[in-house]
Amino acid sequence: MIEVLRLGHRISRDKRISTHVALVARSFGASKIYYTGQKDGSYENSVERIVSEFGGNFSIEHVESYKKLFAGKTVVHLTMYGEDFLEVSDLKGDILIVVGGEKVPGEVYELADYNVGVTNQPHSEVAALGVFMDHLVKSSYPTFKDGKVRVKPSTKGKEFY
Amino acid sequence: MIEVLRLGHRISRDKRISTHVALVARSFGASKIYYTGQKDGSYENSVERIVSEFGGNFSIEHVESYKKLFAGKTVVHLTMYGEDFLEVSDLKGDILIVVGGEKVPGEVYELADYNVGVTNQPHSEVAALGVFMDHLVKSSYPTFKDGKVRVKPSTKGKEFY
Repeated sequence: MIEVLRLGHRISRDKRISTHVALVARSFGASKIYYTGQKDGSYENSVERIVSEFGGNFSIEHVESYKKLFAGKTVVHLTMYGEDFLEVSDLKGDILIVVGGEKVPGEVYELADYNVGVTNQPHSEVAALGVFMDHLVKSSYPTFKDGKVRVKPSTKGKEFY
Repeated sequence: MIEVLRLGHRISRDKRISTHVALVARSFGASKIYYTGQKDGSYENSVERIVSEFGGNFSIEHVESYKKLFAGKTVVHLTMYGEDFLEVSDLKGDILIVVGGEKVPGEVYELADYNVGVTNQPHSEVAALGVFMDHLVKSSYPTFKDGKVRVKPSTKGKEFY
């Protein structure tokens, strides 16, 4: 089981990026996203609307404290300061992937089982999550056969099942 | 050579996402990002500041029309409606990766050599670009040895060369 934790969500600034983080989590095979920071009904609604249209059981939950989520899981914190993710992407069991916000508490580096960088360059927590999960699931993605909307891959234009 | 084209940038709404797109392009080995839509000095400065700190020759340029950029390049348009990217990630020569904005002109689907989906689910142009480029460069990333700031991979905390 893969879950994702988004740290430090801010309603005014982070809605789009946090939504991208959640949708990437869903598309690459996570079952749930938790987030800390400001509770944001509009963020939750955006994610839930996509799930209701495109299928699957992905859920979103605001939590006050993240520490209790770490118990019994392999915790992978994505950070540009971390060790090369290619060394640690062959993980088993229940995995919690932690995606930072503007300021990550120092203890996250201590509590995580792995601090990993997807390149050691500044880019995007959204891309880091996508690339890390892609390796984790070996490019095998959920198909969401229960979706009301199901896109049919097409070389030109837009098609649906 | 890999270049990226970001379509339809809007100053008020897209600055963060477009910045992420540019930084992902740089981190995964593109040499340049072009963008259409509103010319945005603040966006360009953000990207140029990172390049000046972290190294490399990555550049950003606003263009009025994207069509002239397509000539002589293999044009790959990332879209959730496209064919499976795993089928088309082994490309050679000069590549232009097109990343959509809010509304992509229909002709982009026609003019592109490939319309590819990184999963056929709605998630993020930032993650789609990262995952596609990761496959394109086979997880081999530039090291930017000329950077004033150079992060040293670390299992805990933040270290620099």
